[in-house]
Formats: sequence, structure tokens, C-alpha cells
Amino acid sequence: MYFNVTNLGTIIMKFEKSSDNLILTLRVYITDKPGFLGKLLTSIGSMGGNIGDVKLVKRAGRNNLREVEIYVSDQEHIEQILRSVGEIDGIQIDTISDAVLDLHKGGKIQMSSKITIADASEVRRIYTPGVAQVCRAIQNDPSAFYEYTYVQNCVAIVTNGTAVLGLGNIGARAGMPVMEGKSVLLHQLVGLSGVPILIESTDIDTIVDTIVNISSSFGAIKLEDFAAPDCFEIERRLIERLEMPIMHDDQHGTAVVTLAALMNATKYTGDLLKNMVVGIIGLGAAGTGIASLLKSYGVKQMLGFDLSENAMKRLEALGGEPSDLKGVMSRANVVVATTGVPGLIRPDMIRPRQIILALSNPNPEIHPEDAIDAGAAFAADGRGVNNALAFPGLFKGALNVTAKKFTSRMKIAAATTIASFANSDRQELVPALMNPDVHEAVTKSVERAAFESGAVRYHEETD
Amino acid sequence: MYFNVTNLGTIIMKFEKSSDNLILTLRVYITDKPGFLGKLLTSIGSMGGNIGDVKLVKRAGRNNLREVEIYVSDQEHIEQILRSVGEIDGIQIDTISDAVLDLHKGGKIQMSSKITIADASEVRRIYTPGVAQVCRAIQNDPSAFYEYTYVQNCVAIVTNGTAVLGLGNIGARAGMPVMEGKSVLLHQLVGLSGVPILIESTDIDTIVDTIVNISSSFGAIKLEDFAAPDCFEIERRLIERLEMPIMHDDQHGTAVVTLAALMNATKYTGDLLKNMVVGIIGLGAAGTGIASLLKSYGVKQMLGFDLSENAMKRLEALGGEPSDLKGVMSRANVVVATTGVPGLIRPDMIRPRQIILALSNPNPEIHPEDAIDAGAAFAADGRGVNNALAFPGLFKGALNVTAKKFTSRMKIAAATTIASFANSDRQELVPALMNPDVHEAVTKSVERAAFESGAVRYHEETD
Repeated sequence: MYFNVTNLGTIIMKFEKSSDNLILTLRVYITDKPGFLGKLLTSIGSMGGNIGDVKLVKRAGRNNLREVEIYVSDQEHIEQILRSVGEIDGIQIDTISDAVLDLHKGGKIQMSSKITIADASEVRRIYTPGVAQVCRAIQNDPSAFYEYTYVQNCVAIVTNGTAVLGLGNIGARAGMPVMEGKSVLLHQLVGLSGVPILIESTDIDTIVDTIVNISSSFGAIKLEDFAAPDCFEIERRLIERLEMPIMHDDQHGTAVVTLAALMNATKYTGDLLKNMVVGIIGLGAAGTGIASLLKSYGVKQMLGFDLSENAMKRLEALGGEPSDLKGVMSRANVVVATTGVPGLIRPDMIRPRQIILALSNPNPEIHPEDAIDAGAAFAADGRGVNNALAFPGLFKGALNVTAKKFTSRMKIAAATTIASFANSDRQELVPALMNPDVHEAVTKSVERAAFESGAVRYHEETD
Repeated sequence: MYFNVTNLGTIIMKFEKSSDNLILTLRVYITDKPGFLGKLLTSIGSMGGNIGDVKLVKRAGRNNLREVEIYVSDQEHIEQILRSVGEIDGIQIDTISDAVLDLHKGGKIQMSSKITIADASEVRRIYTPGVAQVCRAIQNDPSAFYEYTYVQNCVAIVTNGTAVLGLGNIGARAGMPVMEGKSVLLHQLVGLSGVPILIESTDIDTIVDTIVNISSSFGAIKLEDFAAPDCFEIERRLIERLEMPIMHDDQHGTAVVTLAALMNATKYTGDLLKNMVVGIIGLGAAGTGIASLLKSYGVKQMLGFDLSENAMKRLEALGGEPSDLKGVMSRANVVVATTGVPGLIRPDMIRPRQIILALSNPNPEIHPEDAIDAGAAFAADGRGVNNALAFPGLFKGALNVTAKKFTSRMKIAAATTIASFANSDRQELVPALMNPDVHEAVTKSVERAAFESGAVRYHEETD
């Protein structure tokens, strides 16, 4: 019943219904007279295509060549739209390109040199014979390893591809574009090196041993798109064996951003999160991560529901109370759903003044407008609750202070900071992903929290 | 008795005696009158310091601030030079900096994004929801993995740190600056991504299994600084288990450049390499790799010597004839030494018209000028025979054609191309490392050879 909700989309469009799975880029010649562009967009919209950017490529005589980005659900949907557009007089399709695939040719990342080698003298410094003295420095003082290599700026992004996006178990290789995407975000948002590591295995021992064996190559480890329940055991064993920041992003990245969203939602409704009864529907990686973090944050009463008995046992171990769908909906003030089951929450289940986060993507458990209509005080889906708001600053902060691990305090600090950047006038739950100030502030707050919780090397632990 | 001769220095200075282990950068104020700079350099030189670049930093009144790069053997040597310089009137030491360590702060490489994310629309293309269609493309057609990820441009640089440079078993972490150096060269010379992977283990099963488990993350695998004899077994097993280009650089990179050097040396002496009796002294990773490649190249008679019985057995398995030092020196026309034992070859062992390559660094088995004095037709040490001439083009060529493995034909093609770029007027053995034309030509010749030897996916093998 659980569902991977790691990558919940990046656009904050709260009441958006379509499932935007594909991006089609259409180039069309449009008669340069008033109304023709409108006709085109109306036609696309009437077929259920969501329009993204519209660009003027060039003016060509009496026609304009325009490029229209259209979000569609599947291949059939594309054909419907093309047929519809083809019927409009004064509009001629030039090319249909797969801009997304084009952009991915040859991959999105590269390992590059920070130093430009201009001449042989430079080679002598970065390579033999000069490099020997750096090797010796590390040999003589192990802490020099962090100073003179890129390791303390480097995160392994490890997957076995068993729970990629909403696509399920598609294998590690097919998951690579997601790993590269995470690496792009790490680089652009906080300047970290993210190195994708694909492990084509579902054996927990193999996965854990392999990661341990290569762990010296990296400053931190980000587990990605490992399916529940194995993800819990893999993360637990790694944290036990390795003294470095390790995080399964689908659990904790999602939890941090969800906590931030709940901090703001309760602020907007005038409630105190810690005193609310929180119900969690779906206890997979995301749901369990959320339950765990809410508990650490101080939420006193937590209900949960999942079809898996083991998932319910995990909730109990975290101090939550197993319930059922009806029980959760009738007792919780705040409901967080991460089930992957569209429409699971019917409007008649909503109680007045409830806060509803229906996080499954692309189709939520209940559409926010329906929940509001049914009496909810606040409702949102998963589109804005993007864990890419959390992981860059979490890793950067942890690496900056050579943290031995992630503590709850570090995660809560990140959530608090993320929450503080949301625009409350617009009742935003979380801020926009591309705001660099957010990531810098998260980094700083995680650094502080790492010190406060004694998670930094050579400090006493209190967490 | 064998010795790691992978990184043999990058400067072609054939008759250079000092062991340049450290690079000292000295900033000095020098009286701006004729003779003072000369005094300084004479003083440094008389203390055995090798002078690299001399730069004028600024003119400051009656003094010039200059930066002098000095190659020294150890810390004590630095102190001797500083004392000597301190005694010169009209010269005042400003700073002594460790330019090499400074350059290594934070490491030399970074994983970076090839795409600049300008806005949310870009995020939607490289991350969710757009990325899902790239994942699906790979899921539906495995060959799309090579097209839409960075993998086919990516080489793992794997070490366990048991034979780093001439430093020996210093551990994987202390070897990291070398791995990063290789990554810098891969990026700068052929635009490949080199990802360092450190495995802190000396257990062959662990090493092989770990590499196999993460092998999907990379297009090719470069084994680096693994000590003999384990390096042979590790490489053999990996080649058996994985269909991708795999190469232990200390064996084959060195062998390719040595073959290129021997092609030119025999050209300069008017001999035909294939018909020569080649003697190899020291049968570690480098010596064994050289023996293996020379055999494939067509050398008919090969003698070898090593203190290890197993090393001698490996030579026999390659079709070589075990001998001893005296036997090799008295019978071989061409002698290649990779022992790591300075002065092992005494001048009285040299026979007239012999070709001597004494490759151990920093101190060769015999200094080339002594060999020439003793009657050798041609002699060189390891300084120019840098395997960084070979590996970039070998990997780039293999990856460009998605080769299933490296074949001898590919290595010989690389050697032939490298040899062809050496300046024969100056009797160069191999060309300068930083000549980009060399690497492009090696790449092309390796691509061709991969096709010719059927090592490309979906082609019949003939090698």
C-alpha cells in the first residue's frame, strides 16, 4: 500500500489535476494574426494538455515559428493533441521533439577538473612527482584526507532501482537519470559532487557490504529509491557500520520537507503541531520517515495505517498507534497520506477543520479543492513538498562540519529553516526550490544543529 | 623485487640525476642588480636543488619579489637549501609555501552539471516529472542507458592503495590524490569523467565482488596502484565477469608507453624490435605487462628475471624464458628494467650496442649517461615514459565504440600512434604529455583497432 513519494514534482500548483508524465515540445508555424496563438493554446488545453513555456523561435514572413511545451499523460494523449492541433487552419506543425530526451543525450553530469593544467609545471604539481607529498601528508595524518581530497565535498547517490519515482522496480540502470538529476541539484544548489552508484542487487547483505567497501571514496551516502521494507534495514546497518552522514532520502528528505509543510499549515490554521493528533496513511519509506521525524519533533499522538502488518509494527516501535483508514480519518486533526492510491480519501471522510496533505504523485489521495469543499481547514497535494528542498543543505551542512551522522536535531533544524522561507501571505507550505538563500540557510542551520547534538567528530553526543 | 613504475614523471629530462620528491615554492626579495638572481640560483643548485619555474611576482623598489620552484628530495634537503640561501647578502626570503599542498585544498575534481538550471522549467526537464520518460526509455531499451546517461563517458578509477607511486602500500585513502590526478588528466586530455573508488581491502574476493557490484555505474574500469601479484588475479577475474573495458594501468598503460618507446629506440639504432632479444628485469605489474604486450606485438625472444618464483612462472606462461641478471644482461639486445632498485645494473654489465630502458623512478637501475659511456647504443630512464600518454586515449577510444574489452590490438595501435608523435630529430622516445593531438590520435586508432579485433558489442571476435 505504500508508495514512493520522494520526487513529488517541483511546481507549486496546488489545485492541478492532470498527471504530467511526459513533456512534449511542439514547434508550430502560426499565422501572425491576432487569435491564432489563442486558438492553438485553446485546442491543446481542451484536450487536457497542460501548457508550459511558449517561446517565439523566429518570425518567418507571415508566420511565426513558436515552441510550445506541453505536459501530457501518455503517448496516446500526445496523439490526441496532435490530431486536434492538426485540424486548426492557419497552424502548421513543424517538428515534435522530445526535448527532455534531447537534453539527456550523453548524460547530465561530468567529473571535471577544478584546476586547469596550462603547462608541464602544473602537471608536476597535480600528478607526479608533486602529488607524492600530498599522499604522504595523508599517510602521516589521516585528517589531511578531508583537507586535500574532494571527498568532504562528495556524496554517493546509491540506488538499486527498486522504487524509482512512481515507476516502481525498474532496475538501477533505468534509475540512473534520476540519480544524475540529484547530482545536478547537489551541484547547482550547494556545490557538492554527487556520484551515482548503481548496485544491481536486491540482496541486503550484498548492498550493505558493497557500500561499506567503497565508503572511503565519499564523504556521505545518500540512499535513493530503495524499496520498503528493505530500505529500513539497509540504512540501519549502514549507520551502524559507518561513521559518516548516511540518509535514505525517500524517508528523511521527504520527512523534513513534510515537517516544514506541517509547521506552516498549522501556523496558517492557528494550531500547534505538537498538540495535534497526526494520522499517517501509508507507512512505506516516506510514511515511516515522516512518523519517525514527527515523533522526534514532539508530536504526542500519532495514528497510522498501512495494509502491511510489518509497517504497522514499525509504527508501533516508533510510538505510534496502529489504526485503520476510518480510524485515522475520524480521529486525526492532521492527515498525511503517502499511499500512491489516487482517491483513497473520499470527501465524506473529511472532518471539519482537518489539515490534509495528500502527498502521492502524480495523483493524490484526495484533490485539495475537494478536501476544502468537504470542510478541511487546509489541504494540499505533494507537488510543492519536494525533498530537493531538504537534501542539498542537509548534506552540505553535515559535510562542512564532518558530521559523524545525521541526527533528528539536524533534520528538525532543516525543516524549521525551510518552513521559515515560505511566503505566508500566499499561504505557501514550503518555498520555491530554486531559491539559493533557502539552501544556504538550511546548510547553516544543519551545521549548528550538528554541533548542538554532538554529531561532529571528536564531540560528545547528546542526541 | 618489482616496483611500481606507473607514474614515471612527466618531464623529459633524460640525464637528470636528482630524485625530485618534493616541490618547494620559495618567494624571495632579490636586490635588483645584475648577478643577484644568478647568486641565488647558483646557491640552490650547489645544494642539489633542481630549479623549475622562476617567476617575477612584482618589482618592489630596489628589490624584485621572485617565486622560485625548487625540486628537492626531502625535508632535510629543504632546510639545507634555506640555510644556504639565507647566507646570501642582498637576498631575503619572504615566504616558503607548499604550493602543491595549497593546490590540493578541497581536492582537484568535482562532479558538475553539464546543464545550467535557469528556471523551474529546466528543473522539470532534468528532474521530476520529465526525467521519468528517460527512465522509461532505458527500461524499454537497455541500449538507451548508454545514450541518455553519462556512463559511456565515465571511468571508475579503482584502487586499494597497496602500490601507490613509489610509496608502496600506503592505503587507499592516502592514494586518493593520485586517483584525483588521473581524473584531472582524463578530463583535460580527452573529456572523460574519472570517478575515484577507494576499496580498503586486500582480499581479492572482496575487491572483485565489490567492483562487479558497482560496475553498472561506469562505462569502463581502470585499476590503479594494486600491488603485484594480486593485481593479475583481480584483473583476470574482472575481465572474466564483466563485458566492458577493464585495464590495470600499472601493467598495460605502462606497457603501451614502453612499447612506443622501444619502437622509437630501435628505430633510432636501426634495429627491428621484433627480431631483438628483449630482456626484462623486474617482473612486477609493469614488467609483466610489458612482457605480455611485447609478446603480442611479435617479439620472438624474451628473457626475464625477478627474485619471485611466481613472477618467473608468469613470464614462462607468457612464452618468455626465465633467466638471471647476468644472463639477461649478457644475452639481451634490449633491456627493460622495472625493479625499483637504483644502480642494479652496473656499467660493466652493459654490452656494446645494447638498448637500455632503466624505468624505475625516481632513481633508475643505471643512469642513461653511464650506460652510454659503457657502450650502450641508446639509454633512457623512466622520466619520459609516462603512462598518462596511453590511458586517456585507450579509454576514450574503447568507450566511444562501446568496446567489450581491451584487446592487444588496441594496445599496440595506441603504442604505434604514440611512437609516431615523438620528435625523431631530437631522438625523443615518446611525445610530450600535454600535446592534445596525441590523445586524439590515440583515441581514433584505438577505435579502429577495437573494430578490427571484433571487441565492439555485436561484432565477432578475432583477437
